[in-house]
Amino acid sequence: METISVALGSRSYPIHIGASLIARSELYAAHLGPAAAVVTNSVVAPLYLGAVRAALERAGARVIEVLVPDGEQAKQWSTLDRVLDALLAARLGRDATIVALGGGVVGDLAGFAAAIYQRGVHFIQVPTTLLAQVDSSVGGKTAINHARGKNMIGAFHQPLTVISDVATLDSLPERELRSGLAEVIKHGAALDQPFFDWLESHIERLLARERDALIHAVRRSCELKAAVVAEDERETGRRALLNLGHTFGHAIEAATGFGPWLHGEAVAAGMVMAAELSARAGLLARPDAKRISALISRAGLPIRAPQLARERWHELISLDKKSAAGRVRFVLLDAIGRASLRADVDPRLVDETIAAAA
Amino acid sequence: METISVALGSRSYPIHIGASLIARSELYAAHLGPAAAVVTNSVVAPLYLGAVRAALERAGARVIEVLVPDGEQAKQWSTLDRVLDALLAARLGRDATIVALGGGVVGDLAGFAAAIYQRGVHFIQVPTTLLAQVDSSVGGKTAINHARGKNMIGAFHQPLTVISDVATLDSLPERELRSGLAEVIKHGAALDQPFFDWLESHIERLLARERDALIHAVRRSCELKAAVVAEDERETGRRALLNLGHTFGHAIEAATGFGPWLHGEAVAAGMVMAAELSARAGLLARPDAKRISALISRAGLPIRAPQLARERWHELISLDKKSAAGRVRFVLLDAIGRASLRADVDPRLVDETIAAAA
Repeated sequence: METISVALGSRSYPIHIGASLIARSELYAAHLGPAAAVVTNSVVAPLYLGAVRAALERAGARVIEVLVPDGEQAKQWSTLDRVLDALLAARLGRDATIVALGGGVVGDLAGFAAAIYQRGVHFIQVPTTLLAQVDSSVGGKTAINHARGKNMIGAFHQPLTVISDVATLDSLPERELRSGLAEVIKHGAALDQPFFDWLESHIERLLARERDALIHAVRRSCELKAAVVAEDERETGRRALLNLGHTFGHAIEAATGFGPWLHGEAVAAGMVMAAELSARAGLLARPDAKRISALISRAGLPIRAPQLARERWHELISLDKKSAAGRVRFVLLDAIGRASLRADVDPRLVDETIAAAA
Repeated sequence: METISVALGSRSYPIHIGASLIARSELYAAHLGPAAAVVTNSVVAPLYLGAVRAALERAGARVIEVLVPDGEQAKQWSTLDRVLDALLAARLGRDATIVALGGGVVGDLAGFAAAIYQRGVHFIQVPTTLLAQVDSSVGGKTAINHARGKNMIGAFHQPLTVISDVATLDSLPERELRSGLAEVIKHGAALDQPFFDWLESHIERLLARERDALIHAVRRSCELKAAVVAEDERETGRRALLNLGHTFGHAIEAATGFGPWLHGEAVAAGMVMAAELSARAGLLARPDAKRISALISRAGLPIRAPQLARERWHELISLDKKSAAGRVRFVLLDAIGRASLRADVDPRLVDETIAAAA
C-alpha cells in the first residue's frame, strides 16, 4: 500500500492506494463516528458493499446503506434529496460519517450530501472507478448538475481519507476504464511531461489492467493533483489548470444531455480541442498537439466532438465556472506538461477550433 | 454608525449598525464583484429594494433581482432551486456577490444559495427584521428546512459584511418585532446577566421602537454572538449555547408545520421550557426561571407550548442537530447569563417539563 498526503493544514488527509484495501477495517477506524452511511449504487453494491459494511462494523460503527441509481442522472436534486431523507430517517447526527462507495457520480453526490447534511458531516471516499481514483475523489469538489450546466450546484468538502483499491478496477467496464484514462492523460498533459512520456510507453499495459501500471498511474495522478489542491484548494488560481479540456468537455456533456458521453470521453475530445486552440494561438507546437491526440486515440477515446451549432457552443462555454467578469477563461498548453489559464483568447481562434472539432 | 468585527481570521467581517445605512454605497463597495444578485421577498422589495439596488449600482455592479415568497415556507428546495436558476439564467459567475435583503428566511435561503452556487460565491447580509439583525445574519449559518426537521440542510458560509439598518425596523409588524426580541432575551439569558437586567428595564422602550434602545440591543446581541462564533465557528462546543430554547422551539415549529408559530415565538416558549427543565434539574434558582418567563411575557411572547403528545415531543427532540452519539443534548441554565450544554439530563425531568409546558 502506498499513501499520499493532501496537505491542507488541519484538514489534511491521506490517500491510500493499493490492492484489496476496501476490507481493511483499520483504514476507516480513525475517521468514524458512531454511525456511518454508505452511499453506493445498484451496480457497485453487489460487488463491494458487503466487504465495506463488514469493515465499518468491525471498526465499531452502526451502518446504514443508501442506494442511488447508476449513472450521471443520479447527480440531481431529487436523488440528493432521497439520500438526505434516508440520513434523517435513520436519525444520523452531526457525528455521523458518510462513505461514498463507487465512481465519480456517487462521490460527488455523497460528498455534497455530507457537505450540506446538518451543515456538514464527516466524509470518506472509497472510489471504485479509475476516474474517481485519479481525479474526482481527491480535492474536495462535490456537486450536482443543473439543467443549465454541469456541477453548477455544489461545495468544497474535503474527505477525511480516500481508500483507492485498484483491485476494484477489475470489474470496471472497458469504456469506463478508458474514460478514467482521459483524466490520467490530462494530468500528464497539463502538469508533468515525464508522466506523459511514461503514459505513451505504458498505455497498452494500463488498458490491459496490469496492476503495477495502474498503481503507478493512480499514485502519480494523485500526487500531481494533491500538490495543486494543497496550493489552491478553492480554485482561485492554479487549480483551474486541472480543468484542461473541461470547458469544451462540459459543453459536450451538456449539449448531449449528460450521459451519452461519459465524462472522460467528453474531456478527451475537449482536450484535443484545447490542444488545437493552443496550437492555433501559437502557444503549443503542432507536433505536441498531435502527440496528445495520438495518445488519446490509442487509449480508445474520442478525438472529435459532436456536431453543434457555433452559437450553442458559445452559449454552453459562457456558463463555465472559470468565467471571470463575464469573460471565458481557457486552460491552454504552452507545452506538454505546462498548462496556463488564459482570459485573452481571440474569439476567432475559438470559432476556428469549434469549426474544426466535429 | 457602530461597527463590530466578527473575528474569524481571513474570513473576519464587519457588522455595521445604525440608522439609514442601506443606501450607503461605500458599505457595499469593498465587497462587490462585477455583478450582484439581490435576493428579497415581495414584502420587503417595495420598501427597500430600490435604495439597495441604487447603492449597488453606484458601487459599479450589474444588479439582478430575485424575488422569493414571504414566510418560512420559502426555506425549501423548490424556492432555492428558483434562486439558483435565476443566477444561472443571468450568467452570474463565481465572482458574483449575493445580497440578502430581508429577514431570517431570506438570509438563510440566499446565504445557502451563495454557499452552493458554483461551490460558493460572496455574500452580503442586509437584515431588515430584528430577528435577523440580532441573530440569523451573524455567524454564517445558512439552511433550508426538510420535512423531517428545520434547518437540516445547509452550510456554514460567512458573509463579507452585515449592514444592519435599524430604520428598516419601523416597517416591521408588531408580532415580528416581538419575535426578534425573543432572540435578544436569549442572548441575555444565556450569556450576559447585565444585559438581561438592562432588558428588564428597557423592554417597553424596545417595544416602542425607540431607536437608541434598538441600536443598543442589536449591538450588544451582535457582540455577544460574535464572540461565541469567533471561538467556535462550526458549533463543536460553546456555540451550541446560542441554541437556548431552540431544542424545544424547533420541535414546536416542526409540530405546527413551520409558519403558524414564528421562530421567535417558538424559541420564547422553548426558553421557558429550558428554564423550567433547568429549575427541575436543580441548576437554576426558581426565582430566576420566573424572571425569564416574566420578561418573555412582558415582551408579548408566548410562555406556553402547544399541546403535543409526549411521544411526538420525543420524536421531534431526538432529531436535534446537537444530538451526539444518539443522545439529545440540552442547553440549560446554571444562572441567568450562564448557559451550559448537558448530555446527562434525566429523561423523567424532560417528561415533567413537557407535561407542564402546554
